Amino acid sequence: MTKNQDFKDHIHHWLLSNKDDGIDLLRKLVQAKSIQGNEAEAQTIVIEEITRMGMNVDVWQPDKSELVKSKYFASNRSDFSGSPNVIGVLKGQGKGRSIILNGHIDVVPAGDREQWHVEPYSASIIDGKMYGRGVTDMKGGNVALLLAIQAIQALNIKLKGDVIFESVIEEESGGTGTLAAILKGYKADAALIPEPTNMKIFPKQQGSIWFRLTVKGRSAHGGTRYEGVSAIEKSMLVMEHIKLLEQKRNKRINDPLYKSIPIPIPINIGKINGGDWPSSVCDSVIIEGRLGISPEETMEAAKNEMENWLKDISKLDSWFSDYPIKLEWFGARWVPGSIDNDHPLVALIQKNYQSVLNENPIIEASPWGTDGGLLTEAGCTPSIIFGPGVTEKAHFPNEYIELDRVFEAAEIIALTLIDWCEIYTDNN
Amino acid sequence: MTKNQDFKDHIHHWLLSNKDDGIDLLRKLVQAKSIQGNEAEAQTIVIEEITRMGMNVDVWQPDKSELVKSKYFASNRSDFSGSPNVIGVLKGQGKGRSIILNGHIDVVPAGDREQWHVEPYSASIIDGKMYGRGVTDMKGGNVALLLAIQAIQALNIKLKGDVIFESVIEEESGGTGTLAAILKGYKADAALIPEPTNMKIFPKQQGSIWFRLTVKGRSAHGGTRYEGVSAIEKSMLVMEHIKLLEQKRNKRINDPLYKSIPIPIPINIGKINGGDWPSSVCDSVIIEGRLGISPEETMEAAKNEMENWLKDISKLDSWFSDYPIKLEWFGARWVPGSIDNDHPLVALIQKNYQSVLNENPIIEASPWGTDGGLLTEAGCTPSIIFGPGVTEKAHFPNEYIELDRVFEAAEIIALTLIDWCEIYTDNN
Repeated sequence: MTKNQDFKDHIHHWLLSNKDDGIDLLRKLVQAKSIQGNEAEAQTIVIEEITRMGMNVDVWQPDKSELVKSKYFASNRSDFSGSPNVIGVLKGQGKGRSIILNGHIDVVPAGDREQWHVEPYSASIIDGKMYGRGVTDMKGGNVALLLAIQAIQALNIKLKGDVIFESVIEEESGGTGTLAAILKGYKADAALIPEPTNMKIFPKQQGSIWFRLTVKGRSAHGGTRYEGVSAIEKSMLVMEHIKLLEQKRNKRINDPLYKSIPIPIPINIGKINGGDWPSSVCDSVIIEGRLGISPEETMEAAKNEMENWLKDISKLDSWFSDYPIKLEWFGARWVPGSIDNDHPLVALIQKNYQSVLNENPIIEASPWGTDGGLLTEAGCTPSIIFGPGVTEKAHFPNEYIELDRVFEAAEIIALTLIDWCEIYTDNN
Repeated sequence: MTKNQDFKDHIHHWLLSNKDDGIDLLRKLVQAKSIQGNEAEAQTIVIEEITRMGMNVDVWQPDKSELVKSKYFASNRSDFSGSPNVIGVLKGQGKGRSIILNGHIDVVPAGDREQWHVEPYSASIIDGKMYGRGVTDMKGGNVALLLAIQAIQALNIKLKGDVIFESVIEEESGGTGTLAAILKGYKADAALIPEPTNMKIFPKQQGSIWFRLTVKGRSAHGGTRYEGVSAIEKSMLVMEHIKLLEQKRNKRINDPLYKSIPIPIPINIGKINGGDWPSSVCDSVIIEGRLGISPEETMEAAKNEMENWLKDISKLDSWFSDYPIKLEWFGARWVPGSIDNDHPLVALIQKNYQSVLNENPIIEASPWGTDGGLLTEAGCTPSIIFGPGVTEKAHFPNEYIELDRVFEAAEIIALTLIDWCEIYTDNN
């Protein structure tokens, strides 16, 4: 029996024995409804856990006056009160490769309650699945990270490289938490982010940016609606026009990592608001959405393409010559990220996946942005996305995670940490 | 010179001499921004004016607990504080026909400020036009009513019939003010409502009712939007489907009074709201609008037709079989109204229009509901709409009225009051 097989069995056994504690931790994290601005309760649970693990704990509230100096900063918040960032460092013995293990603590709103079969923050377990907003995106992944470190600690192994665990805010709104950690000096030789990939490995990831469109109409009494111009009807034209842009942009994507993804870089219209009186013709509509950005293009190029495309709508309808669509880039943005498919960390995760699950992992491009783009581009830390959550359930009603995946991911990550950071012995 | 010609000259002369006072009154009323819930300031101006005119003044705040007993009541307000109803009665000497002169004091919101060239409540006068929200719909009409009564008073004429001047709230949201006056016992042999008709006479008027649709989707992350179902996209189908219903309903209208109206009974979509996160697929959209109702149909028949039409959308898209559109009738409704074209009050207004303006008036059907439907149906008071405002500018940015029309309408109305209510002499 090799030494590695020995570790593997011990880690596997430790995770089995500590399954209830892991599930308890995940339940507590889900129940702490950490929507934007409300992350403190969940972060307190994280702080307790990593303090107990003996990590060096760093907790701070990101400072907007510092953040705005970075070109990567994008947030519509005026300050970050109620939203602490938390980092725990397990200092290595030296000379090994360091790693950042990054997971966001914020969750998107639960949406329409009627579409949930359980209370969105109940963390109910049914048939081996835990349900709740944020359980898959990405508290299940965060717990897998903590379990991986705990399993290594239980073996009394010391690593050469540093392990930096980051529980960050604001991933869902553009990455302010991870940016704040980068600006505070946290860097490593690589990073792993267990976003919900269905246990796939994503060396490349889509970026994205939020946009806001204002479409004008001309008001009139609803009883003589033909005297006005409905901004709602004009918005329908705008949305059709944007759909054609999405088609055009996606036709260009030929990276084989995207081959099984129906729309590699979607343009999502997420919000629409217009009108203030049922019997008036609506004179102004605001549309908010998300422009997906390919790993191979720059954010500036994507923005320019959309700006020009929207200007062209006046060729289809002269209304827009007199009342052009107003386009604003606001709130969140996620920098696209890309590392080589043969990066050594990819190879190690692949190997340990094979060893734990007896099959080859799928390697794909991420359909969404993560903080990996920031870590890779702004933090000089090549990042890989691999996690136990269910991709299709992120941001969905009835979001769930299969609990077995959390422990499988923890096992693969623990073995990968040992391989990457290397074991320190007194003979070193 | 006939006695009537004598009156006409005196009234004409009095209106000319008092033009500045009339314009001042209109300016003050427009500047008192009487949007829903905020009518008290404007009503105070009315109370001062009709008190000065020696009318018997009745001021009260409509009581919801009484109103809800009427099948005609439709309002989403919980109470009517801040919104007094005002009535002034000029008691006749007896034996003459009585008349209600009804005008609403509430105005719709100003809408997008950027589309106004003047401040919406400035009441600025440019080239003989006064600009402002509510000036045409319908404070200009209300002032014409007051000027007509004042002109008759200035002649020292006593009328046989009662003149009941009503300055009502809530016309723009379904007629609670007029309903409250009816329930309090105010009735007459006929009513005149100077809504903005471009000086046309409307013996028939469209009714209308507000509807609210909830369209469901299924949420997902915007980066994998193909995993969800966009309620915004489904709403576009719903709005197209409603457009076909509008076409179907309007094809049936063959009343010659509607011959020059492009869409006799429009369906207006006035508001749309959906989604709570730019990068999530939107799972719920709420659409609010106004269904126009023909003078020849009942409100129930129109509602049933729309209900069935919306159910049929599941034949076009099976999504709606599982997630049917939720339809609510809410807030405002205006009962359609219709009186004979040869009603004696129509004939009198026609005659006096011809006499004052030396041309024949246009007689048409109203493209919108007014409180005339309620007065005719619930108040047993046949109602005619005729007023100086600019139809196309009601509910529009840059709403205005041509001031000369206000005084022409006042002259026609004064002569009509004399004809309808008849002059009392001691010989009677």
